[in-house]
Amino acid sequence: MPAGARPRPPSLRLSGPYRHGGPHAAAHGAAPPARQASLRRHNLALVLREVAAGGPLSRAELSRRTGLTKASVSTMVDSLTSCGVLEELSSEGSPRPGPGRPGSPVGFGPTSPVAIGLEVAVGYTSACVVDLAGRCSRQSLLVLDNRALGPAAGMQRAARLVAELARSVRDQGRRLLGCGLAVPGVVGPSGELWWVPNMATWAGLHPAQVLDDLLQEHMGGAVLTGPGGLVADAGTPGDGLRALAVGNEANLGALAELWYGGHRHLEDFLRVSGEVGVGAGIVSGGRLLTGARGAAGELGHVNVEPEGLPCACGARGCLEQYAGQEAIVRQAGAPGYGQVLDMAARGEPSALLALEEAGRALGLAVAATLNVVDVPTVVLGGIYAELAPYIQAALARQLAERVVGGRFGPVRVVAAGVGREAAMRGAGGVVAHQVVADPAAHLPELLDRSA
Amino acid sequence: MPAGARPRPPSLRLSGPYRHGGPHAAAHGAAPPARQASLRRHNLALVLREVAAGGPLSRAELSRRTGLTKASVSTMVDSLTSCGVLEELSSEGSPRPGPGRPGSPVGFGPTSPVAIGLEVAVGYTSACVVDLAGRCSRQSLLVLDNRALGPAAGMQRAARLVAELARSVRDQGRRLLGCGLAVPGVVGPSGELWWVPNMATWAGLHPAQVLDDLLQEHMGGAVLTGPGGLVADAGTPGDGLRALAVGNEANLGALAELWYGGHRHLEDFLRVSGEVGVGAGIVSGGRLLTGARGAAGELGHVNVEPEGLPCACGARGCLEQYAGQEAIVRQAGAPGYGQVLDMAARGEPSALLALEEAGRALGLAVAATLNVVDVPTVVLGGIYAELAPYIQAALARQLAERVVGGRFGPVRVVAAGVGREAAMRGAGGVVAHQVVADPAAHLPELLDRSA
Repeated sequence: MPAGARPRPPSLRLSGPYRHGGPHAAAHGAAPPARQASLRRHNLALVLREVAAGGPLSRAELSRRTGLTKASVSTMVDSLTSCGVLEELSSEGSPRPGPGRPGSPVGFGPTSPVAIGLEVAVGYTSACVVDLAGRCSRQSLLVLDNRALGPAAGMQRAARLVAELARSVRDQGRRLLGCGLAVPGVVGPSGELWWVPNMATWAGLHPAQVLDDLLQEHMGGAVLTGPGGLVADAGTPGDGLRALAVGNEANLGALAELWYGGHRHLEDFLRVSGEVGVGAGIVSGGRLLTGARGAAGELGHVNVEPEGLPCACGARGCLEQYAGQEAIVRQAGAPGYGQVLDMAARGEPSALLALEEAGRALGLAVAATLNVVDVPTVVLGGIYAELAPYIQAALARQLAERVVGGRFGPVRVVAAGVGREAAMRGAGGVVAHQVVADPAAHLPELLDRSA
Repeated sequence: MPAGARPRPPSLRLSGPYRHGGPHAAAHGAAPPARQASLRRHNLALVLREVAAGGPLSRAELSRRTGLTKASVSTMVDSLTSCGVLEELSSEGSPRPGPGRPGSPVGFGPTSPVAIGLEVAVGYTSACVVDLAGRCSRQSLLVLDNRALGPAAGMQRAARLVAELARSVRDQGRRLLGCGLAVPGVVGPSGELWWVPNMATWAGLHPAQVLDDLLQEHMGGAVLTGPGGLVADAGTPGDGLRALAVGNEANLGALAELWYGGHRHLEDFLRVSGEVGVGAGIVSGGRLLTGARGAAGELGHVNVEPEGLPCACGARGCLEQYAGQEAIVRQAGAPGYGQVLDMAARGEPSALLALEEAGRALGLAVAATLNVVDVPTVVLGGIYAELAPYIQAALARQLAERVVGGRFGPVRVVAAGVGREAAMRGAGGVVAHQVVADPAAHLPELLDRSA
């Protein structure tokens, strides 16, 4: 198929109810299936969701957790193992040959399908392989300057990184479900980069389309569009798999924290992350708040000093100019970000003062945010996780003074459970979640096999 | 029944998906009904929702809009008219005696059931009667100082106002569905006032309980707990009618704007309202954003000047100290708020400057909010609607400079479609919406009549 004829991947829809493993089966866009197929589809999702959330589980345990009969669970598990989504494991969790018994667990094994998560940031490009439970099995990182490289060269590097991981996936005999892409900007409804303040030349780019084209070159369509992959089918099954999808890095980082952060019952939080820009993802009632145009959580441009320093966005006094990575380096009088950490560890006053000021500014903007959306927990991600010892006191002072919700319960500030890999893991995780939510929409052979 | 034995009304749950006339039938807490009753219940809600949203409609039109057969629509309409929820109207919309024909409309008439909405504000107490479509048929306003009166005397005045309206409802032969109450503070999960910064002595009060007790005295239970009313039944049908319910005035004002503001497709907006305090209600994707502890939208305590004026909340530089009613009066050097408007109309510089400063401060806080939640429309309610000519330019300048989302589409600032009555109309409207969403949960006789 010529490149021009391939269906264009739509953008990542981040507005759905991305709850902890919740089923979103109702959202698929296919024609209404017959009652029997619909029931089967629902039950496949029920079973897969429990395995994704709870690790390897026996058929008996799956029956207990889903409320399905053991016979029905067995039927679903047989379908999911036949098409390679689940594997029969030994009771220690390692793969085992042959059919399982009711007591032996099924789960995701070394040949279960995976997704690729990619992050293009100002100062690096990174990618990882995640399974349907969101576990990373491989990561790659390129330290580079995407601002200086520009979109053409920058996307070339990104595509090479993805192609490399895709080849390793193929070599393992795994099915590749798709690729999610995190970017440091606001993404429009059809996946174009609406605004990338710290990589201005990238604005207007449709990174998923570009990546798709580049992967065709790199891979010759062999992996991503071959029989083991689903990219070529991406546009066809209605609202099915968005194989190459793109979302804001702060939003994807917040989803990674929600899904993989290891917190119990953390459904209302603000995840703040910093690199050159400062971003935030807001999860309220277990849902990502994306806003009407996908631009929610633009914490970096919340004002902290009405007539303050000029910002790249055109306004004055934005948080980014006080708590962004480059602002901290400048304030500390350091040659680079790495040196700021060293200087702070040595107790050098210029670094400590710059970090205290960053914490105070962050506190002002976070307090405003908490007064607006009322979430009780602040998760420090990106550079703020490692800077926590130096910024936390000033941050906490602002929150204690200013947050109305603090009168009714504690405002907690915690380090992120998912580290610097959060955005790429969230990007891969969105693909994984879509498949878990409705496996039959993405793996149509699940419906071909009659029970 | 002694007062102590009456079931306590629970608080208003504002966290539900309060969409434009959307059905919430699935949310009721009764035991799972049999399939036939469940279907009937669903269809009753479908029919009632269309009448509430679309005005008087013929049975034929109802069939078209709901997708139900004409026979099924007739059955539902017969039940709803038999118990007085709907009335047969002439083709001009006035009530008509006797059974209707398929072409003649049914709707809410002068004896259809109603709810009462009450607002207790710092400077006034007001109440209104709303029908199931949210239309106000009667309003009462007491100008007084609830801060000085304190909770005991203040609630006495409020109860008298409600009792007066309840009597008029009874005299019209209408059924009273319940009463919703708007307060200028943060409401806890069981209806207690957690924080009322400008009426500090009211903190800790459970206004719905107090109102309930006072109404017993005033009305002797004759109206609100009599056969025509449902208050006495409020606690019994599980999660049924919350007859006396309480919510934050800014949140209820935003719901009134969403439901009754006359905007088309306005599902993402911030409604800013001012009286002594400054509040905001945020509607995102057609849902009210309440936050984890009901304290979302606390715009009045968003910082606009890091080391600015001290605020009643204990912090410095809160918006309320620059754009609240008392702050404007103080800045303008006026004897009272009414005079500020006169001075501004005469072009007196002190008033114009105070209002410009209020607009600038409001712009800073609103810009921060829009950057956090990304809604494209700002609705000016409360005093800001009448102050718009004097504050709008300064407000718009801040938004143009600072709102990231403004790069992707217009940020509109509009006057509220629902005026000063918004909070009380929203409070009554919540009761009306609950009944429309599942009429059988609130009017059990709808299920007694077999089709």
